[in-house]
Amino acid sequence: MEAALKQALSATSVAVEKVLDPILRVPDGPEAKVYEAMRHAVFNGGKRLRPLLVLASAELFGVERSCALRVAAAIECVHCYSLVHDDLPAMDDDDLRRGKPTVHVAFDEATAILAGDALLTIAFEILSDEKTHPDPRVRVELVKALSKAAGAAGMVGGQMIDLSAEDHDLSEHDVFRLQNMKTGALISFASEAGAIMARASKQAHASLQGYARDVGLAFQIADDLLDVEGTEEEVGKAVGKDEGAGKATLVGILGIERARQQAQILADQAIDHLSDFDDKALLLRAVAHFAINRRT
Amino acid sequence: MEAALKQALSATSVAVEKVLDPILRVPDGPEAKVYEAMRHAVFNGGKRLRPLLVLASAELFGVERSCALRVAAAIECVHCYSLVHDDLPAMDDDDLRRGKPTVHVAFDEATAILAGDALLTIAFEILSDEKTHPDPRVRVELVKALSKAAGAAGMVGGQMIDLSAEDHDLSEHDVFRLQNMKTGALISFASEAGAIMARASKQAHASLQGYARDVGLAFQIADDLLDVEGTEEEVGKAVGKDEGAGKATLVGILGIERARQQAQILADQAIDHLSDFDDKALLLRAVAHFAINRRT
Repeated sequence: MEAALKQALSATSVAVEKVLDPILRVPDGPEAKVYEAMRHAVFNGGKRLRPLLVLASAELFGVERSCALRVAAAIECVHCYSLVHDDLPAMDDDDLRRGKPTVHVAFDEATAILAGDALLTIAFEILSDEKTHPDPRVRVELVKALSKAAGAAGMVGGQMIDLSAEDHDLSEHDVFRLQNMKTGALISFASEAGAIMARASKQAHASLQGYARDVGLAFQIADDLLDVEGTEEEVGKAVGKDEGAGKATLVGILGIERARQQAQILADQAIDHLSDFDDKALLLRAVAHFAINRRT
Repeated sequence: MEAALKQALSATSVAVEKVLDPILRVPDGPEAKVYEAMRHAVFNGGKRLRPLLVLASAELFGVERSCALRVAAAIECVHCYSLVHDDLPAMDDDDLRRGKPTVHVAFDEATAILAGDALLTIAFEILSDEKTHPDPRVRVELVKALSKAAGAAGMVGGQMIDLSAEDHDLSEHDVFRLQNMKTGALISFASEAGAIMARASKQAHASLQGYARDVGLAFQIADDLLDVEGTEEEVGKAVGKDEGAGKATLVGILGIERARQQAQILADQAIDHLSDFDDKALLLRAVAHFAINRRT
């Protein structure tokens, strides 16, 4: 199972980068720098978990792979933009990401801000292009779902709550909400994207939403556990930062042992949501296992 | 003519703010801050020139006003996001905007970055919502056009070139290109939005594109002239900054007298592009006059 997933992640990475390479081609002219910074942010050895979720959910419904790959590319642009902005000195102030200098270190702050802005924007350009799907209803639905997931009611709002946690304590409720918004919303969009592309039933949407909610939280708990237990070398970025920065994490609230149990329960629940999809959901099940067993 | 335009701008401002007020409603919860910062950026007494262009171009084709107002609201969100990010310390480092503290001064840098991100994102959420237009082909076309105008090949790329001008000289060609990308692209989208909403002829699109290109440049030259000749009180932000920062402006390249002549020529050309639209284009003509005669 794990080998199959690793292979799938690696194949996804190759395929998504092949889609993004021409889209992010560096033009001649003085604006080249922002494209170079976008490439630095995107071609960074990322796991490509969100793209894999898009491809896996698209497979459930037999969606054409070339369409799914473009949606996967769009969501990866949004994920990478969020990392670039979160790493900025005014935010989490991280110099290292996957063992490499972050964008504002490799370039400069202004370029990092602009590269993030451009990556967010290009995600919507990719989704709205007819190459992504022949049906305009599907394209506009993808735009709508991604914008909701990425905006102030989703990912950006989650980061705002996360930053506010440095000043005052959050309740357990707030921390769960923060994680659902900050990482859950985008993972949810990725998991549902196949259903949107296939114009699938409400029932299918609901199953995938349930799966995504549980996998997203399991993934976040595993991330927090890595921050507490992992080494900098393994994780490829500074560890132990959350506690130092007074960050509100689920591990901080639940404690290590309960957090580990909770992650297992969530992964099991996530898999239960997939019962309607039989063998087609093998990959999504593997992701749920991976979410809690990964070392990086 | 000028009184009619002032009235139109003022009516546009009221109508667009009425659309944006519920969209930017501040929620309960620790993410409220990012919404407050978004409101600070949007409800700032801006001229609402881009929204007016949307409404004026929509009127040419009898597009329903409620649809046009939502597109106007979306483009204003993008314009305001660009101001918030451009004002950041790492970019133009401006403390004042329309006589009020900029977002990173009124809040903090992290919140300003996030508020900008969220404003950009919500623009696409607004456009993709069916309230904006019943035809999904139109909605997705609006998304596509706005994302192209706002991204690395448009507004963001223009700002990148502008920043690079602080380090090395730009050719006259580069400066024109920079202005076309930085402000022209969004003004172009605003002017064309009516044609997109009405699914108008290629000819109509081309006329509006021509109009927008000329008005955009005229507007930018007038902006540069204000920076050279205006007082801080009149303009509502620091003046004389462009020269101090070694910024590449059209006035710097053409000189004041030639710049003023060029702006007049561009405004006349802009108006020539509107000949097909007869009396329906009164407002767009007034905008062309206003572009070069404004004092703020």
